[in-house]
Amino acid sequence: MSAAGTPVAIIMGSQSDWATMRHAAETLDALDVAYDSRIVSAHRTPDRLVAFAKGARDAGFKVVIAGAGGAAHLPGMAAAMTPLPVFGVPVESKALSGQDSLLSIVQMPAGIPVGTLAIGRAGAVNAALMAAAVLALNDAALADRLDAWRRKQTEAVAERPVDDSQPASESKHP
Amino acid sequence: MSAAGTPVAIIMGSQSDWATMRHAAETLDALDVAYDSRIVSAHRTPDRLVAFAKGARDAGFKVVIAGAGGAAHLPGMAAAMTPLPVFGVPVESKALSGQDSLLSIVQMPAGIPVGTLAIGRAGAVNAALMAAAVLALNDAALADRLDAWRRKQTEAVAERPVDDSQPASESKHP
Amino acid sequence: MSAAGTPVAIIMGSQSDWATMRHAAETLDALDVAYDSRIVSAHRTPDRLVAFAKGARDAGFKVVIAGAGGAAHLPGMAAAMTPLPVFGVPVESKALSGQDSLLSIVQMPAGIPVGTLAIGRAGAVNAALMAAAVLALNDAALADRLDAWRRKQTEAVAERPVDDSQPASESKHP
Amino acid sequence: MSAAGTPVAIIMGSQSDWATMRHAAETLDALDVAYDSRIVSAHRTPDRLVAFAKGARDAGFKVVIAGAGGAAHLPGMAAAMTPLPVFGVPVESKALSGQDSLLSIVQMPAGIPVGTLAIGRAGAVNAALMAAAVLALNDAALADRLDAWRRKQTEAVAERPVDDSQPASESKHP
Amino acid sequence: MSAAGTPVAIIMGSQSDWATMRHAAETLDALDVAYDSRIVSAHRTPDRLVAFAKGARDAGFKVVIAGAGGAAHLPGMAAAMTPLPVFGVPVESKALSGQDSLLSIVQMPAGIPVGTLAIGRAGAVNAALMAAAVLALNDAALADRLDAWRRKQTEAVAERPVDDSQPASESKHP
Amino acid sequence: MSAAGTPVAIIMGSQSDWATMRHAAETLDALDVAYDSRIVSAHRTPDRLVAFAKGARDAGFKVVIAGAGGAAHLPGMAAAMTPLPVFGVPVESKALSGQDSLLSIVQMPAGIPVGTLAIGRAGAVNAALMAAAVLALNDAALADRLDAWRRKQTEAVAERPVDDSQPASESKHP
Amino acid sequence: MSAAGTPVAIIMGSQSDWATMRHAAETLDALDVAYDSRIVSAHRTPDRLVAFAKGARDAGFKVVIAGAGGAAHLPGMAAAMTPLPVFGVPVESKALSGQDSLLSIVQMPAGIPVGTLAIGRAGAVNAALMAAAVLALNDAALADRLDAWRRKQTEAVAERPVDDSQPASESKHP
Amino acid sequence: MSAAGTPVAIIMGSQSDWATMRHAAETLDALDVAYDSRIVSAHRTPDRLVAFAKGARDAGFKVVIAGAGGAAHLPGMAAAMTPLPVFGVPVESKALSGQDSLLSIVQMPAGIPVGTLAIGRAGAVNAALMAAAVLALNDAALADRLDAWRRKQTEAVAERPVDDSQPASESKHP
Repeated sequence: MSAAGTPVAIIMGSQSDWATMRHAAETLDALDVAYDSRIVSAHRTPDRLVAFAKGARDAGFKVVIAGAGGAAHLPGMAAAMTPLPVFGVPVESKALSGQDSLLSIVQMPAGIPVGTLAIGRAGAVNAALMAAAVLALNDAALADRLDAWRRKQTEAVAERPVDDSQPASESKHP
Repeated sequence: MSAAGTPVAIIMGSQSDWATMRHAAETLDALDVAYDSRIVSAHRTPDRLVAFAKGARDAGFKVVIAGAGGAAHLPGMAAAMTPLPVFGVPVESKALSGQDSLLSIVQMPAGIPVGTLAIGRAGAVNAALMAAAVLALNDAALADRLDAWRRKQTEAVAERPVDDSQPASESKHP
Repeated sequence: MSAAGTPVAIIMGSQSDWATMRHAAETLDALDVAYDSRIVSAHRTPDRLVAFAKGARDAGFKVVIAGAGGAAHLPGMAAAMTPLPVFGVPVESKALSGQDSLLSIVQMPAGIPVGTLAIGRAGAVNAALMAAAVLALNDAALADRLDAWRRKQTEAVAERPVDDSQPASESKHP
Repeated sequence: MSAAGTPVAIIMGSQSDWATMRHAAETLDALDVAYDSRIVSAHRTPDRLVAFAKGARDAGFKVVIAGAGGAAHLPGMAAAMTPLPVFGVPVESKALSGQDSLLSIVQMPAGIPVGTLAIGRAGAVNAALMAAAVLALNDAALADRLDAWRRKQTEAVAERPVDDSQPASESKHP
Repeated sequence: MSAAGTPVAIIMGSQSDWATMRHAAETLDALDVAYDSRIVSAHRTPDRLVAFAKGARDAGFKVVIAGAGGAAHLPGMAAAMTPLPVFGVPVESKALSGQDSLLSIVQMPAGIPVGTLAIGRAGAVNAALMAAAVLALNDAALADRLDAWRRKQTEAVAERPVDDSQPASESKHP
Repeated sequence: MSAAGTPVAIIMGSQSDWATMRHAAETLDALDVAYDSRIVSAHRTPDRLVAFAKGARDAGFKVVIAGAGGAAHLPGMAAAMTPLPVFGVPVESKALSGQDSLLSIVQMPAGIPVGTLAIGRAGAVNAALMAAAVLALNDAALADRLDAWRRKQTEAVAERPVDDSQPASESKHP
Repeated sequence: MSAAGTPVAIIMGSQSDWATMRHAAETLDALDVAYDSRIVSAHRTPDRLVAFAKGARDAGFKVVIAGAGGAAHLPGMAAAMTPLPVFGVPVESKALSGQDSLLSIVQMPAGIPVGTLAIGRAGAVNAALMAAAVLALNDAALADRLDAWRRKQTEAVAERPVDDSQPASESKHP
Repeated sequence: MSAAGTPVAIIMGSQSDWATMRHAAETLDALDVAYDSRIVSAHRTPDRLVAFAKGARDAGFKVVIAGAGGAAHLPGMAAAMTPLPVFGVPVESKALSGQDSLLSIVQMPAGIPVGTLAIGRAGAVNAALMAAAVLALNDAALADRLDAWRRKQTEAVAERPVDDSQPASESKHP
């Protein structure tokens, strides 16, 4: 399933979710954390979901990032079948702007947790940062890289707003 | 799994959903439609869910009624693993009054349908009526019973509202 | 009203709903299920609604798919006047993005059910799949076609997301 | 249907709506406007609805007040079948507190209007006041009574709030 | 203020509301009902509001149509100062799509009614139709014109949806 | 209207709002800031509103606190007629829990501001604190009292939660 | 930190908020009130937030205007660390259109107030007007300028709506 | 601050949040994970928040669980000042049932993540399970205990619903 040593799995319900979830991938790249990205549809490929989730720990993953939109069952169902921490990213849906995605992911019943991030790109970036923070608990080098990333982010915040239409870099990754 | 000839399966995510889902059972009783009620938690018993959903058609069921609350994944996940029609009942949740349940059930992506009913008791009654309407397409006797039930319901509507605090029977099953 | 042997009626509140409801028609085409599409406005043509709904069973229809937006009364009123199963599609409305359509369709009182699907295109596709699943209960050939459709859908899900801007086909009908 | 000279019809979807709609009746009583109250369920008694709405003008009614909850189709369907002004009262529903009732009534498409009042008791009182204001356009005596009612209402507003637990009368009808 | 014989006043909170409210004006034109359109801002021109509302009946108006967006106080404040029927049109707002406008208009306390229509263009058209229905109670010629308008609207509904991108006329005024 | 030297006016739409607004009064008492409480209904006593708002500055008031529920027009209409700072308190409404009150107060158009506080008791307390903060800008003694109040509030926060059912005082005013 | 005599601080969470908050700055310019604009991110620059908020009074500021979007913690956290009046502007967010921003700012617990304005541009303009109203309590010249600004705003409201696509100036600052 | 070896900090905004957050504590007790519970109010004790969050890693904590209600800034502000993983629990608020708490916690901007759980008790239980899952990545004995807990939870789900009013134990912790 996964080469040993790949700590993060990024799964998503469909190809169309990649536009959001690639921000998780890019953030992990920036932090030099290995990951494996794949499409796992809870509804269209339930067998793949079962196989992935039940095998995730043995495959060597430490953290699962799962993104989905609408009636978003992927994060919660993955969490039901793996003891690994699962972080959920509500993808912005067309009609309801991700309100359905958010509630479908965050309102899990007591017993099976999903750590839910913000709707859309911000949530994808933050799911990666959360995964890194978890891994950094036992990886001093990663902890240093994460500290550096956060420091750089802080330093990138300009003192004053500027009028020109090409804004400064502070809304980007440092 | 199910005695041959039991056409309807009623599944629910937990014992606490029975307070709602029993109204589906009672309505099927009134229509003399056999059913089997069981607890299948998508999150706490995912294996049971897979076994139930994959085996539902072979077990002789024709229709599945699934009730759940909060991040309600049971109806959609059952629908992902059976070709039978699945009707979903959003159980009223504590904090969000079933708005989370409703969106988690109804906003399924194209490809895997769940016919969703109203939040709470009304939805449970109506899931049973919907199941009966489906079965009645090929069961003339049931069609007659359903017609009679609806006629009785119509006749039970009083012409005028009454003041006394013990309202007439029209809000009950006929 | 309808040639004998046309099992599905697709009704909608106005011409503008066709942009959504055509996805139901196309899905039925893919499954080789005959249907009849017509405009029936609950508010502007109430007599047409009464005539259609009261006559639907005798006209040979087995299932009604009804789409409408805003204060969407068509599905529920059709269900009030026919014993056939009615599936409702909330059309996305301008100001409230279909939240009004959804609640107007799904929150039916106990006694008259409407099996409600998702807002917009996904709901239209799924109403067709739901109709097919109901008909397949007594049509083995259709059951086979539906199984094949679902299998093809599963197979069309790529293993991994791709970056290029022309996404793979998994978000299309198989 | 109605004795000649009864200008207002109060219709409601079920006996349970009377707890709300009686406030419309009481307000009309206070203004000495005659009315006829009846239960007309759009879903359980569609024929009664058609008969009522199509016959309302000939029966001598001038204004229709319609209250319903949940997927509240009664006001809009009545408006589809009568040229009389229809005022809608969204009855507070259990799970969604009348948000479903409100949207189902107010979001009518262009062509068929329903003048919608507030959710619950306030809406019922105000539907009566609106009916009276309409009738008062051609009934000078009623206009005087309505002016007096409003004046009394204004005079009943105390200058200062009081602490005791039995509040002054300003929240009651004058 | 108004020439005698102008029965309808259309007021709105700002010039920007005219894009919505002109649909009320056009509908009244189609029904040959005279009206007077003016900008009355509850917040920026409170004196104008007081003068207008207190003088509306004496100026000969019979019905007031008031449109506003956001914290939309114009309809309710006009209703507080005139005994005439006031119909409110929630203008679609930028951030909240008119949900703020709708609640600000419809949720009036018991005592001062505003008959509220749908958000946006549909609501403006329907406010005009509602005004016409009220006036038609005592104007047989207008009642005939309104009946004809509704009949034409019904006849304009096509039997079947069409695919071409220039839809038939049924979504326009007849 | 007001004795010279009373800097704060507390107005509310009805006696029933006093259960909420008394918390503003009690907080001003704790800070030794004088105030005048009165009922001013935008809808039932519009003349009183005009007189109050237009005269508020000349009456010596510096700050207006206005509480109302539902279609809550009082704060915004007061702000339209006085140059004084107006702070609005959305009173919790029955059906919509103050969501209508909040939007009716906060979504004011550009040009007429209302500084809006939280729904209910918290908002009433905070409106008083906001008024005090404004007055303290030019009243060193009040600034000291406000600093002391805040310090006491900070000190009242216990280090650790306790189990017993009579919670410590930190949720009360210090 | 700030030159003595600059009474208003405008802070915002990121450069991207400037598109909204510049309307506060422009309104203060129009009223000839000095201000200092800076980026203070509660989340990315918490130390800057602490330093700013704790030092704001000593730096000579009288009023703080704080704008932020999404989980908008800046206004409330600034208010927690300064006794100055803080006015919050909910910036319109992408997925939820500022509903998250609004609730994150306005629903402060009893004890720490934030006077909240409307979502987006209107809120930014009004935060400036609110700041000016507060400062005008002790600055007669500013009070005159604010009165003049409001008078000009009133005078700029046209009597009647116009059809041409270049609307009159009343939606601009006077 | 904390005895070395206490891996989890549970912080909450006020004593009243303990009714919710104690479920996190009890769940950690069941898993034999040490924790330290304390009240840290972002708004009333900002210095305590800064001290806690900045010192959390050095104090030996591995994971922070933060619960708050309303404009819930505690989880996000803690996350801004510690590199440790922070899990947020939206406490159910009075007027808005925790919708404000949820959005204030989950909608964090890119750069500072909070893993958000469900509103109320379920979220508190799940925050503890999430913390345990994170710690279990490097604690085989805890991993075993967590596996056992989950197995017990699965086994506790009854096969069939029961009618009696004392439901079986499956909604409790195993």
